[in-house]
Amino acid sequence: MTLKRFTLNTASKEGLYPITEQVREAVGQSQAHSGLAVVFCPHTTAGITINENADPAVGRDLLKGLGVAFPDQRSFEHLEGNSAAHLKALAVGSEVNVIIENGSLLLGVWQGIYFGEFDGPRSRTFFVKVMKD
Amino acid sequence: MTLKRFTLNTASKEGLYPITEQVREAVGQSQAHSGLAVVFCPHTTAGITINENADPAVGRDLLKGLGVAFPDQRSFEHLEGNSAAHLKALAVGSEVNVIIENGSLLLGVWQGIYFGEFDGPRSRTFFVKVMKD
Amino acid sequence: MTLKRFTLNTASKEGLYPITEQVREAVGQSQAHSGLAVVFCPHTTAGITINENADPAVGRDLLKGLGVAFPDQRSFEHLEGNSAAHLKALAVGSEVNVIIENGSLLLGVWQGIYFGEFDGPRSRTFFVKVMKD
Repeated sequence: MTLKRFTLNTASKEGLYPITEQVREAVGQSQAHSGLAVVFCPHTTAGITINENADPAVGRDLLKGLGVAFPDQRSFEHLEGNSAAHLKALAVGSEVNVIIENGSLLLGVWQGIYFGEFDGPRSRTFFVKVMKD
Repeated sequence: MTLKRFTLNTASKEGLYPITEQVREAVGQSQAHSGLAVVFCPHTTAGITINENADPAVGRDLLKGLGVAFPDQRSFEHLEGNSAAHLKALAVGSEVNVIIENGSLLLGVWQGIYFGEFDGPRSRTFFVKVMKD
Repeated sequence: MTLKRFTLNTASKEGLYPITEQVREAVGQSQAHSGLAVVFCPHTTAGITINENADPAVGRDLLKGLGVAFPDQRSFEHLEGNSAAHLKALAVGSEVNVIIENGSLLLGVWQGIYFGEFDGPRSRTFFVKVMKD
């Protein structure tokens, strides 16, 4: 069992949802001692990122900063009206790799893995693939 | 055969070129049932990203939004004059990983893989490496 | 030996530090003929990126451009005052994958791998994990 699918329901238009525990669960079930955990988001207005796990204010500041860098624009053509969400997904990225060592995720002490929602609320999915050494 | 090299000729200064089919071809030839497809761009003013595969307006909006976030600046020092293209490449990223499951790319229904050109037109290259489980 | 840990002392608040040689060293020691080198940053105000290896002005322009896209903001809530650094880390990303072919990194001729510091000076760490085919 090296692939796991997880779901989450996002609560508002934008948010960073901690998913480190789900990734740990997938790694534990894989019984991989050493390798790589690939966390992948199959959506185009959401992404996966690694950032601070301690102060929730950081997450709010990240969303605010992304809104300043990638504002909605009147001249956007996409009729669904969510091009800014697509841009944030592009900047954040669809996936991250985390190294597995001694059966654990090799994360820094302040690092957590997050699902970034930019066009919610929605029912969302992500995958964790474990590649063993 | 787990590494494939592809070429493309970009048509203008900026553009997002769909390359999902080439990545599928590389995965098919590798005969990998399960694993990872790593798509890598060996250029510094271009990148690889995953975004919407349906409405081409999304791609135009993404390029417009990147231009707003990362404008050319008079104070840039690089004499080649393409520092904004380097910045866009940095934000987009040089590579993406896609999970392979049951011999297929595990992409979301709206996802496509794109080669992002930010300093064309040029002859460009990208690689697809398949890592089997 | 497929995992190596490296340290560096960054010299100022922001900088891009070349680490291609360290990644090459890790790949050499792994004796991998073919595979993947995963370069991972365990910090939340620093990241790993690939960009031009020739003109150092490009690095200065990249930092300038990131500062324009992700400025510090009075309304940021995080009391440590480094939310802009967290944003730059998010945009740059915590890790890159580089393909290994014939025992060497498959980098483009102008590409180098960089450790991006956004909240220095500090003592920093990064990891290189080699996954063999």
